[in-house]
Amino acid sequence: MKIYDIPGFPNPLRIRIVLAEKQLASQVEFVKVDLPAAEHKQAAFLKINPTGTVPVLELDDGTRIAECTAITEYLDNLDGDPILTGKTARDKGVIHMMQKRAESELIDPVGIYFHHATAGLGDALREYKHPQWTARAEWGKLQGEKAVAGMRYFDSVLEAQPYVAGDAFSMADITVWAGLLFAHFARIDVPDDCNALRAWKERVDGRASVVNPA
Amino acid sequence: MKIYDIPGFPNPLRIRIVLAEKQLASQVEFVKVDLPAAEHKQAAFLKINPTGTVPVLELDDGTRIAECTAITEYLDNLDGDPILTGKTARDKGVIHMMQKRAESELIDPVGIYFHHATAGLGDALREYKHPQWTARAEWGKLQGEKAVAGMRYFDSVLEAQPYVAGDAFSMADITVWAGLLFAHFARIDVPDDCNALRAWKERVDGRASVVNPA
Ligand SMILES: N[C@@H](CCC(=O)N[C@@H](CS)C(=O)NCC(=O)O)C(=O)O
Ligand SMILES: N[C@@H](CCC(=O)N[C@@H](CS)C(=O)NCC(=O)O)C(=O)O
Repeated sequence: MKIYDIPGFPNPLRIRIVLAEKQLASQVEFVKVDLPAAEHKQAAFLKINPTGTVPVLELDDGTRIAECTAITEYLDNLDGDPILTGKTARDKGVIHMMQKRAESELIDPVGIYFHHATAGLGDALREYKHPQWTARAEWGKLQGEKAVAGMRYFDSVLEAQPYVAGDAFSMADITVWAGLLFAHFARIDVPDDCNALRAWKERVDGRASVVNPA
Repeated sequence: MKIYDIPGFPNPLRIRIVLAEKQLASQVEFVKVDLPAAEHKQAAFLKINPTGTVPVLELDDGTRIAECTAITEYLDNLDGDPILTGKTARDKGVIHMMQKRAESELIDPVGIYFHHATAGLGDALREYKHPQWTARAEWGKLQGEKAVAGMRYFDSVLEAQPYVAGDAFSMADITVWAGLLFAHFARIDVPDDCNALRAWKERVDGRASVVNPA
């Protein structure tokens, strides 16, 4: 299989950590997409993923799967032993809820802050980010505040349980971890009093798949 | 189990259709949440779902699952026969990709249009929708345009295959269908030339679970 992505970026990293968790890295050929040059917004790439984001997984039969949650479902279920997305109905439900919250309350708002309230990825990409819209920066800042509220929410979750979706590490932990990485890059600080979130992050920082992603 | 929701609203309907598909309706007690009165933004409900939306599923052991995708994963996997979320790794991946697109490109932008560019659910809710933000209506309109682009995208998908995620009906069809219902309510028209999307909608309109949701 092939993965279209760019090394070091937060959403691509989510899948590179999944590949390490599932020991699938050797089966993947990576194809680099030049985001700062806006390659992902040109016709050739929009045929691969009409929503114009990376990562995208391409199977040997040509099937393309975009969206980290969807790619993780595929990779995690390949061997019939889903360790990241849940084995029981209850675990699948809770993990998908927390995965969605990790996106809607953290990593996605950070992305909007980054692209609208800061210089983002620079000049080539600007025209794809509503440059004519006068309230862009204000909108970005509101989303930056939402991301901080999201950090406080995950801190409260992690005061009560060791991992984002309960007792076991799951894809929701990967997404929150990538959200914090992106926030750091965008210079959104984790509030000083989010002790449970900080302690959890240190534990995840030390995980083999996070130290050595694909 | 219990479901907190409000009859007739688009996201709650997604789950009521799932319940009909899975013949689980008789096992559920519905608890009404008064959205126009902003009950979902008060402390009591925010304990049930901190992101302040319906539907929310509550299991008999007290576990709460919010987010339609997560609730559908739970309900669909209860009997070990997932007919809506995919049986193989590939189907799970493709269905989750299309489910995510149905949210990000259609039902969610319609919701933002409805709450920001129109009177939305009225006065009681307004204070929870950034009333002080001067560019609200402009933002809502941009999202309305995004929803129309989303309709054109799903039309192109349905020109090539009978259902949103391929040959079989899945949760992604339910979400696109609910997105169109919400769009109609918010007075966003389906473009005249979206013939494949219209033909698909007529077929789904006639489905037993859609005619008689829970
Ligand atoms: N919801 C998507 C998010 C993917 C995403 O936003 N990726 C970033 C890279 S970290 C991207 O492609 N950004 C391009 C842009 O915003 O123009 C997923 O889960 O894959
Ligand atoms: N992503 C959520 C969306 C739920 C949602 O937005 N529900 C609407 C009712 S259709 C709601 O609770 N709206 C309240 C509000 O926006 O204030 C899901 O999948 O459950």
